[in-house]
Amino acid sequence: MTIAFNTDRFWDSLDQMARIGATPDGGVKRLALSPEDDHARRLLRDWATAAGCTVTVDRLGSMYCTYPGADPQAAPVAVGSHLDSVPTGGKYDGPYGVLLGLEIVRALHEAGRRTKAPIVVVNWTNEEGSRFSPAMSASGGAMGVIEEAKVLAAPDNFDPSFTYADALQATGWAGTTDPAEARNFAAYYEAHIEQGPILEREGIPIGVVTHCIGVEQWDVTVTGTDGHVGYPMAGRQDALAAASELILALERTAIETGGMGTATRITLQPDARGNIPSMVRFAANIRHPDADGNARMEAAFRQAAAGLSARRGVRVHIDRVGGYPRVPFAPPLLDTLRRAADAAQLKHRDMPGPIPQDALHVGIVVPSVLMFIPCHGGVSHHPSESISRDWCAAGLNTMGPAVIETAGGLA
Amino acid sequence: MTIAFNTDRFWDSLDQMARIGATPDGGVKRLALSPEDDHARRLLRDWATAAGCTVTVDRLGSMYCTYPGADPQAAPVAVGSHLDSVPTGGKYDGPYGVLLGLEIVRALHEAGRRTKAPIVVVNWTNEEGSRFSPAMSASGGAMGVIEEAKVLAAPDNFDPSFTYADALQATGWAGTTDPAEARNFAAYYEAHIEQGPILEREGIPIGVVTHCIGVEQWDVTVTGTDGHVGYPMAGRQDALAAASELILALERTAIETGGMGTATRITLQPDARGNIPSMVRFAANIRHPDADGNARMEAAFRQAAAGLSARRGVRVHIDRVGGYPRVPFAPPLLDTLRRAADAAQLKHRDMPGPIPQDALHVGIVVPSVLMFIPCHGGVSHHPSESISRDWCAAGLNTMGPAVIETAGGLA
Repeated sequence: MTIAFNTDRFWDSLDQMARIGATPDGGVKRLALSPEDDHARRLLRDWATAAGCTVTVDRLGSMYCTYPGADPQAAPVAVGSHLDSVPTGGKYDGPYGVLLGLEIVRALHEAGRRTKAPIVVVNWTNEEGSRFSPAMSASGGAMGVIEEAKVLAAPDNFDPSFTYADALQATGWAGTTDPAEARNFAAYYEAHIEQGPILEREGIPIGVVTHCIGVEQWDVTVTGTDGHVGYPMAGRQDALAAASELILALERTAIETGGMGTATRITLQPDARGNIPSMVRFAANIRHPDADGNARMEAAFRQAAAGLSARRGVRVHIDRVGGYPRVPFAPPLLDTLRRAADAAQLKHRDMPGPIPQDALHVGIVVPSVLMFIPCHGGVSHHPSESISRDWCAAGLNTMGPAVIETAGGLA
Repeated sequence: MTIAFNTDRFWDSLDQMARIGATPDGGVKRLALSPEDDHARRLLRDWATAAGCTVTVDRLGSMYCTYPGADPQAAPVAVGSHLDSVPTGGKYDGPYGVLLGLEIVRALHEAGRRTKAPIVVVNWTNEEGSRFSPAMSASGGAMGVIEEAKVLAAPDNFDPSFTYADALQATGWAGTTDPAEARNFAAYYEAHIEQGPILEREGIPIGVVTHCIGVEQWDVTVTGTDGHVGYPMAGRQDALAAASELILALERTAIETGGMGTATRITLQPDARGNIPSMVRFAANIRHPDADGNARMEAAFRQAAAGLSARRGVRVHIDRVGGYPRVPFAPPLLDTLRRAADAAQLKHRDMPGPIPQDALHVGIVVPSVLMFIPCHGGVSHHPSESISRDWCAAGLNTMGPAVIETAGGLA
C-alpha cells in the first residue's frame, strides 16, 4: 500500500493560507510575527493538530508539528519552510514548503498510518528578514550559525524601538523548546518555488538542488572629487561615472564567469543637480555556483576596480558586509528525490540553488535537501508570483514519497 | 587723471562680508533672504550710501546702489552679482562681483569724481537658487525671462509653507521699484570667480567670457524588470546596469565632442539589497560651448540610449526639465575688457562661461559681459573656495577702468 496525497487539498490549503494578509493586487503581506503571521501560525497549528500532530514552539518562535513515528527512538525527519512574506510578497514563497509537509502528515493521518521515524513539519520564523535582520535568522539560530541572543535582539526594521523578542511576546509565540534540538533531525527536506526561470523554460517540473551557492555582499564606496557640473571633463574625478564603470564590470564579470553579480542601493554625495558626485556608495551582491566562483569573481572585480581607480584618480573601497557559505546538500537525499521523481514519472534536473533558503542553514548541520518547482516567469517576491496546479502536485508527488522513505517507510 | 582703485580696501571688504554667515570650516552659509543675507544687504547699503550712492530696491528684492552720473539723461551702466550663497558656500562666489562694483564707486567718490552716466552696483536676489527655485530668479524676473509672480510664489526649499514673497516681507526687502527698469541699463558688467581650473592652470588672471553656454537639464528614466539578485544574468533587464551604460555614454559623448555631461541624483526602485532595480531615474546635465554642441550631444546620447535599449530590453525615457539658452555677450564690451586688461598689463584670454550667472539673464536684454578671475583648483560652492590677492586686484584693475570707459569716462 502506498499513501495517496491529496493534491486538491494541498492546493486549497495554499489558497486559504494566501487569504491571510492578502493584498488587493493578489499578493500577500505577512511580515514575520505580525498579526497576519500570527493568524497564519494559528491556522497551521489547528490544521496540524487535526492531522494528529503535536505542535511545539522553540524560543525563537519556530513551530514544530510532530507526527509521531512507530519507533519512538528514531530521529525525526523534518520537512518545512516558512509562512512569513516580504512586504510585497506572493502566495507561494514559503507556504508551499510548509503546507507540502502538512499534506504528507494529513495523508498519513487519513490513512491511519505512521512512518518508522516521526515526521516534523517546520515553520521557521523570519525567513525573509524583511522585518528583522538578518534573513533566515531562526533557522540560523537553531543551527548555531547565529547566536540566539542576537536573533532575539534584532530591532524591527519598521519600528526600531521593538525587537524580535518583543514581537514573540506580543504575539504569544515565544516557546520553550531549545532551538538547538532541531540539530537532531535525521534529515531535513525543503520544497520551494524556484524564484528563477530555468525549470519553466526547460519544461521540467522538479529541480533537485545540489547545493546552495555561496553569496558575498559588499558595500562599495567610490571617492572622487567635488565639482560644479560646469567643470571641464578633463581633471574631473566623477565618482558616479567611476561607479557606473564598476557596476558594468560587476555585470561583465558575472556573465563571463557564469555567476551572478548585481549592484543595488546606490547613494550619492553630494546629491544635487548641479554637483558632480564626489562619493558614491552601492551594494554589490555576487554569487556563483562553482566552489571557487565567488573568489574568481572577486579577483576580477578588484582588478577592474584597481584599473579604473588608477585611470580616473578615484579611490574604491570594498567592505564585506555579509554573505552565505556554499552549502552542499546530502547526496543520499538528492538520490532519494531523483528516484521519487522518476517513480512519479516526472522530469527532473539537478541545479544549484542561487537564493539562500532555511535549508542552507539547516544543511550546515543536518543532512538536508532542497527541491524546486517552477514558478511563472521566474517571478517571486511580487504579488504576481504564481505556479500551476501541475507543478504544485509534482512537488508533492516527489517529496511526499521521498520523505516517507527517509522516515523509514510505512511502519 | 585716472582713478586709483584701492585693492586693499576691496580685499578687506570681501573679508568683512565673508564674516556674515561664516561657517567654522572657513566657508559661508548665506541663503537668499535669510537673516545672514539681510545682514549682508544692510552692510552693502551702508557702504554704498557712505560712497555717495542712492540705494533702491525692486519688487523682487534686488538692490540697486546708484552713483550719480554727470549727465542725468544718460542710461546707467550696471556692475554687479549676488551676495547669497549655497548652503556650503565660499567667500567669493557672488560677493566678488558686487564688492568690485562697490570699490569702483568708492574710488570715484573718494576722488570726488563722476562718470558721464550713472553707475549702478547691483545685488541680485537669489542667484544660487538654493533656497528658492529656480536659480537667478530675480535677474530672470527683471529681464522678463521668468514671470515676476512666479518668482514671488516660489516656495522655500527648506520650508515649503513659506515663499519668496514671505521672505521679502519678513526681512523688509520687498521694494517698490519695477524690476523691469533694469532693462534700461546701457550696459551690464559682472565679475565672478571662474569656478573652473583653466585660468589658474594657464597662469592667466583675466578671462573674458565671450558667451554663457547653453545648458540642458534632463530627467532620464530607465525601466527594466524586477527580479531577485539570484536571478540568472541571461534574461535580466537590470535598470541600474543599463543606467550605468547611459551614464558612461553621457561622459564619453561630452569628452568626444568637447562639451560637459554629468549624471547626478540617481534613485532606484526597488531600492533593496536583494532586488534587481527595475526602475532607475537620474538627472543629466549637458552643456557645450558650441552653438550646436548641445544638439550634437543630445543626438549622440539618444543614439546610445536607443542602442542599449534594444540590446538590453529596457525602456529609456528622456524628459527635459530645464536649461538655459546660449547667451553671447556684447562684442564692444568684450573689447573694452580686453583693452583694459592690456592697459593694466594683465594677461587675458577669451573663454566660454560654462556656468550660468545673472549675466546670462541680463545679457538676453542688455548689452552685457562677464569676466572671470581664477580660483584655486577651480573649487567653488565649497568652504575651501579661494582666490589670491593678485587675482582679486587684477579683476578690479581690469573691470574698474572698463566700467568707467563705458559710463562715458570721467566727467
